Amino acid sequence: MVVGVPDVKQDFELLTRGCEEILIEEDLLSRLQSGEKLRIKAGFDPTAPDLHIGHTVLINKLKQFQDLGHEVLFLIGDFTGMIGDPTGKSATRPPLTREQVEQNAQTYKTQVFKILDEKKTKVVFNSEWMDKLGSAELIKLAGQYTVARMLERDDFSKRFHAEQSIAIHEFLYPLVQGYDSVALHADVELGGTDQKFNLLMGRTLQKAYGQEPQVVMTLPLLEGLDGINKMSKSLGNYIAIEDAPSEMFGKVLSISDELMWRYFELLSFRSNDEIASFRQDIEKGTNPRDIKVKLAEELVARFHGDDAVSNLSKGMGNVFKKGDMPEDMPEIELIAADEKGIPIANLLKDAGLVDSTTSARGMLKQGAILQDGSEKLNLDYLAEKGSCHVYQAGKKKFARVKVK
Amino acid sequence: MVVGVPDVKQDFELLTRGCEEILIEEDLLSRLQSGEKLRIKAGFDPTAPDLHIGHTVLINKLKQFQDLGHEVLFLIGDFTGMIGDPTGKSATRPPLTREQVEQNAQTYKTQVFKILDEKKTKVVFNSEWMDKLGSAELIKLAGQYTVARMLERDDFSKRFHAEQSIAIHEFLYPLVQGYDSVALHADVELGGTDQKFNLLMGRTLQKAYGQEPQVVMTLPLLEGLDGINKMSKSLGNYIAIEDAPSEMFGKVLSISDELMWRYFELLSFRSNDEIASFRQDIEKGTNPRDIKVKLAEELVARFHGDDAVSNLSKGMGNVFKKGDMPEDMPEIELIAADEKGIPIANLLKDAGLVDSTTSARGMLKQGAILQDGSEKLNLDYLAEKGSCHVYQAGKKKFARVKVK
Repeated sequence: MVVGVPDVKQDFELLTRGCEEILIEEDLLSRLQSGEKLRIKAGFDPTAPDLHIGHTVLINKLKQFQDLGHEVLFLIGDFTGMIGDPTGKSATRPPLTREQVEQNAQTYKTQVFKILDEKKTKVVFNSEWMDKLGSAELIKLAGQYTVARMLERDDFSKRFHAEQSIAIHEFLYPLVQGYDSVALHADVELGGTDQKFNLLMGRTLQKAYGQEPQVVMTLPLLEGLDGINKMSKSLGNYIAIEDAPSEMFGKVLSISDELMWRYFELLSFRSNDEIASFRQDIEKGTNPRDIKVKLAEELVARFHGDDAVSNLSKGMGNVFKKGDMPEDMPEIELIAADEKGIPIANLLKDAGLVDSTTSARGMLKQGAILQDGSEKLNLDYLAEKGSCHVYQAGKKKFARVKVK
Repeated sequence: MVVGVPDVKQDFELLTRGCEEILIEEDLLSRLQSGEKLRIKAGFDPTAPDLHIGHTVLINKLKQFQDLGHEVLFLIGDFTGMIGDPTGKSATRPPLTREQVEQNAQTYKTQVFKILDEKKTKVVFNSEWMDKLGSAELIKLAGQYTVARMLERDDFSKRFHAEQSIAIHEFLYPLVQGYDSVALHADVELGGTDQKFNLLMGRTLQKAYGQEPQVVMTLPLLEGLDGINKMSKSLGNYIAIEDAPSEMFGKVLSISDELMWRYFELLSFRSNDEIASFRQDIEKGTNPRDIKVKLAEELVARFHGDDAVSNLSKGMGNVFKKGDMPEDMPEIELIAADEKGIPIANLLKDAGLVDSTTSARGMLKQGAILQDGSEKLNLDYLAEKGSCHVYQAGKKKFARVKVK
C-alpha cells in the first residue's frame, strides 16, 4: 500500500476482495495509480451459456472495474468454438456455426447485462483477429512456448502421465487464448482458478510481442448452497439467474451464516465498509437472518428488479417478518440412496420433522410442509442430491437439511 | 512379385534398388501395375543448396521414376523457410526472403537439371497452399496427430528426455510437410532415412483427409570416399557436383572396390543387368579398375558432358591407360593432428612413400607427387580430415591414404 493515495487504496481493496490470486499485486496497484483507463479482459466460451449465480462472481468483478471507470472487454472465444474438436473424439464439442455463435452471444448478453452496463461493455469476438492471423503467424506464435512448459499445465500433465492422448491442436488453444491478450492490449485479465495457466500465457505472449504483461486475477469457484461443493447445476446446489424471486430469496435464506459472508464477499456490490458493519451488527446482537435477508434482496433486485423485492416481502412476510423461523435449528445431513435424491416424505421422517412417512404425506396434502419458508411442497417433491434447504413441518418444526 | 507382369517387375526392381525401406512394397507394385502416371514427391530445404554427389542419390531415384513416365514433383519448402526459427535461438535459420527463396531455387535447378529432365519436372513451392491455409485449418491439421506420437520422433524423444527445449512450432513443421503430400496428392514420396518420420506423417494425414496414403521410400545417405563416414563437405570426403572433370574422375578411381558397387547401385543409371554383368567380368579376370573407370566416366559425362570424358582420356592416359597404378596398394589411415588436416610432406613420410619430409618437399617441387593419378600436388597442399586419395610418389610408389 502506498501512503497518501487513499482513493486508489480503497479501489484496490475492493477490486482484490475475494480474489484467489493476483499476479502481480504491485503491478495492479501501480496501474490503478497511473489514473489510466485500464483494459479489463475476460474470456467466455461460445457454447450455449446457461448461467447460475456462481458464474457471476467473475462478472461482478468486471462490474467493479467498470464502476471505477475502466473498460470491460467481454471476449467470446468464437474462433476456437467454430473449430470444435478436430479429432472428432469429443461429441460434446461439435463445431459451432456463425449463427449459433451469434445466438449464444445474445443469450450471454441478456444474462450478463443484468449486471454489467451494456453501454460501457465492449463485446469482442476473437475470430476478428484470429481469422486474419494466417498459418505462418500461428506457427510463429507457437514458437513462443515450449512443449515441456505446456505439459506442465495440470490437465495435460495428468493426461500425459496417464498415457491418455493429447492432440497437438490442444497445445494451440492456450496460445490462442494468450494471443487474445496481445490483440486486445489487455491490462488485466480475470478468470477462474482453473484458468490460471492460460491467463499466465497471456503474460508470456505479451512480453514476447513487446507489450507490458497483463495483471492476472483469478477468482474462486463459488460454493453451492451446501457450503461444501462448488455450485453446479448437476449437483443441484445452485441458484440460477432465472430462478423465480421467491425461489432465489428462499435459497439465499437457506444458507449457513458462514457461507453468507462468502456470498457477500463474492456476490454483493456492497462496499467492504458496509459488510464490516454488518459483522459488527451481528456481534452486537442483530439476528444473522436479518443480514441474510439484505443479501437475498440485493440478489433478487439485481436479477428481477426492485419491484420483485417489494412483492416478495408482501407474499412471504408471514414467515420471515414475524420471525417464525428460529435462529437455531437442527442441521441434518442425509445421504441419498440413489442419484436422483430423496423423496420428500422420507426426508421429513429421516430429519425427525414427522413421525412417519404416512403423517408426512398427510401434511404434504394439507400444504403444511414449507421449503425455505415460502414454498409449499407437493407429495412428489424430490430433494436433489447436493441440495440444501430449510424444511418446515407445521408452524414449529424446522430443520436445515443437506442431501449428499 | 506377380508372375506374368515382367515389365513392371523389372521397373519395380530398378526403382527399389538401393532403397533403405519401402512402405508398403505391395502398394508400390500395385500402383505400378495400374499403369497410371504416378505423382512422385520429394521435398527440399530452401536454404542455399550446394550439392555434392551424395545428395544426388535421391535425385537419381526421381530420375528413374521420370524415365519410366511418372511425374516428378520437386517441392521446395519455402513456407517454413520464410518463417525461419521464430524462437530466434538458431542463428543458422534466419527467415528467408522471397528473393532468397527464388535465388536458391534457381541454384537448385541449375544443379538438379543436370540429372532430371527440366521439361518433365514440376517445381512446386509449398507456400502456394500453406499461405492460403489459414490459422483455423492449421489448427484442424494439428488435431490429426497426438503429442505422444510426435514425441516418438527420434530427435524430439532425445531432446525431451535430455530436458532440452522443444518449441511448439517444431511440432507443426512435420505436420506441414505431411500436409504437402495431401495438397499434392502424392502417390510416392522419397526422402533420406532421417526423414522417415515426416514421410510417414504424409501417409497419416492423407488418410485423415480421405486420400490413399502415399508409398514412402527412404534412401540411404551415401558413404564418402573413405567408405566409412557419410559423404559430407565438412568431412572433406566428398565429390562436389562442381568438381572439375579430372578431379571427379580421380576421386572415383580412388575408392575401394567394395565402395564401387555401392556407388554403382546408388549413382549409376545402368540397369541391374549391366551391373550384374560387370561383377561377372571381374570374376572372369577383368581388372576392377577398368570397371571403376566406367563409373567415373558416367559421372563426369553426367555433370560435364561427353566431351569432358574424351578430353579426360587424352590428358591422363599416361597413368590410367598404361596401367601404372597397381591393383593392390597399401591402405593407410592417418590421424590429423588438428582440424585442418595433414600437410602433404608429413603425409607422404608417414605413409612411407618417401623417407623424409625433406625428400617429400624435393619431389613436390619437381611435380613428382600425384593425387588420384592425375593431379600434381604443390608444397602447400593440405590433406583434409576425412579425405581419401591415392598418392603416388614417382612412378612406382602408391598408397591409398585416409585422413581421420
